[in-house]
Amino acid sequence: MLLLHLSDVDEERWAKNLGELLGDYPLVRQNERFDPEQVRYIFVWKPLENAFDGLTNLKAILSLGAGVDALLKHENLPRNVPIVRFTDNQLTQCMSDYVVANVTMHQRCFSRYQNDQQLGNWTQFYPPPAWDISVGIMGLGVLGHDAAKRLIALGFTVNGWSRSAKQIKGARIFCGAGQFDDFLGQSDILVNLLPLTAQTENILNYRTFSKLRRTRLNGGPAIINAARGGHQNENDIARALSDKTLGAASLDVFNIEPLPKDSALWGLKNCYITPHIAAISNPENGAAYFARVLTGHENGKPLINVVDVEKGY
Amino acid sequence: MLLLHLSDVDEERWAKNLGELLGDYPLVRQNERFDPEQVRYIFVWKPLENAFDGLTNLKAILSLGAGVDALLKHENLPRNVPIVRFTDNQLTQCMSDYVVANVTMHQRCFSRYQNDQQLGNWTQFYPPPAWDISVGIMGLGVLGHDAAKRLIALGFTVNGWSRSAKQIKGARIFCGAGQFDDFLGQSDILVNLLPLTAQTENILNYRTFSKLRRTRLNGGPAIINAARGGHQNENDIARALSDKTLGAASLDVFNIEPLPKDSALWGLKNCYITPHIAAISNPENGAAYFARVLTGHENGKPLINVVDVEKGY
Repeated sequence: MLLLHLSDVDEERWAKNLGELLGDYPLVRQNERFDPEQVRYIFVWKPLENAFDGLTNLKAILSLGAGVDALLKHENLPRNVPIVRFTDNQLTQCMSDYVVANVTMHQRCFSRYQNDQQLGNWTQFYPPPAWDISVGIMGLGVLGHDAAKRLIALGFTVNGWSRSAKQIKGARIFCGAGQFDDFLGQSDILVNLLPLTAQTENILNYRTFSKLRRTRLNGGPAIINAARGGHQNENDIARALSDKTLGAASLDVFNIEPLPKDSALWGLKNCYITPHIAAISNPENGAAYFARVLTGHENGKPLINVVDVEKGY
Repeated sequence: MLLLHLSDVDEERWAKNLGELLGDYPLVRQNERFDPEQVRYIFVWKPLENAFDGLTNLKAILSLGAGVDALLKHENLPRNVPIVRFTDNQLTQCMSDYVVANVTMHQRCFSRYQNDQQLGNWTQFYPPPAWDISVGIMGLGVLGHDAAKRLIALGFTVNGWSRSAKQIKGARIFCGAGQFDDFLGQSDILVNLLPLTAQTENILNYRTFSKLRRTRLNGGPAIINAARGGHQNENDIARALSDKTLGAASLDVFNIEPLPKDSALWGLKNCYITPHIAAISNPENGAAYFARVLTGHENGKPLINVVDVEKGY
């Protein structure tokens, strides 16, 4: 039996999509009556405190969403059950779309020209070609790798940084805490696509910003955060934008969401806010993915994209 | 002898760069004394009325800039001398950078989110993935081809339209006046990279805008003009942005440049103005290119990138 336990998303739509793909396989929603001992799989998003109660025969937890930081903090999470996280072509595509749109906006000095337009000011300044701009991507999982590939195809110089050594054709890879400052010093635009863990929490702070390369981009370096609000110190971002340590910031995620009305970020010059819409898991692709995982596992295949609980992603 | 006749650009810098590459080959600037009959090549940008006077032994006219529309209207242009126009990796890269930045800005509903930010409004709307957006590129020369290639690498659906049949891997190509409306009807974002000729003048008009696909892009279709001001009817753009026939316009070129202070375009919502800075010919790359053309021709090689005067580009 598959139990759906989804908050803040359209559970009914997921149930319909999964039901069509799973055929006779029993499927229940959280508010229906069911025998917890029959539940072999639970599909979760923002699970309530009692979500896992009585699920003594659980084979796997299926997590909607690529980031499992919140799920891993759930107090009653069964520690011995593998967690399968979501990867999805559309989610990956949308995340890269967001990254490319914001990288190119900063490269092309959008703030400067919008400001000039408001003043009716015709002043020619030629933005640097992509190959003169170095984009540093933090996090080289599925999302970071795809964004790197797209930016390389556009002609950008691409640096990558991750916990463990990776290889991406055409990118220069830095690895671990020891190479972090070197990585920052060679990046004009910093893109965060890291998982949120104890090691990466608060990584977008004033010290990080002050280490970025300052020479090539008009108006100072830029940061783009499409991962988690917990990665960023929002006071430090406000300070860095004000004192020109940063030239611009594109933020899709925040410590508190929705971003509170009184946050200084709303009104900061060169701060580009979007309401956590960089990418979303698509119910059609997602249903196909999880139906494949479940059916495969029931037929003896190993699970894919299993979270490493020690690493936190 | 090579004669430099450049207005509105740094002729001295070009003279220095070309001088270094041409070695002993004689080079004069327009305001120096020289024997016109000795001039075999003239390198021009915005030539004065008397630029070609007495140049009876001219072998080729070298044109700074990829567009030769203004040059072809010069009253005293020698009609029997081949014109070599400029192509340059950096110019091509910068043009594609501009196109990609503006396509992705419109795809990602930049106007909507900037407006929401100004209101402190957190409303989630998920922009469509690149593959749901169809970009129509008018003009498939070096610039159009490169922009198409980059957009395809990003995952966009790409349509191309040109005078004569072309092939671009991964793009759908439309050809000639007979397929123009069909091309427009399948494009959400229209990019103009055409040469300016009698046939393409004023092509960005209200009728064209009204034929664009209206279903997929938030706020209506968008246009991007990085070619020539003569391609666009600016009153029609203002009207189409006001009545939502267009959702947005990115304009780098104008009928009169600098754009006059009293133009309605400056203050139009969703009109993104830049002061003809999409791409510029780079004096270092350019000197290498023209020195190669001249030296090759003196050594018996055919000229490259010769303008077809009948076609106008």
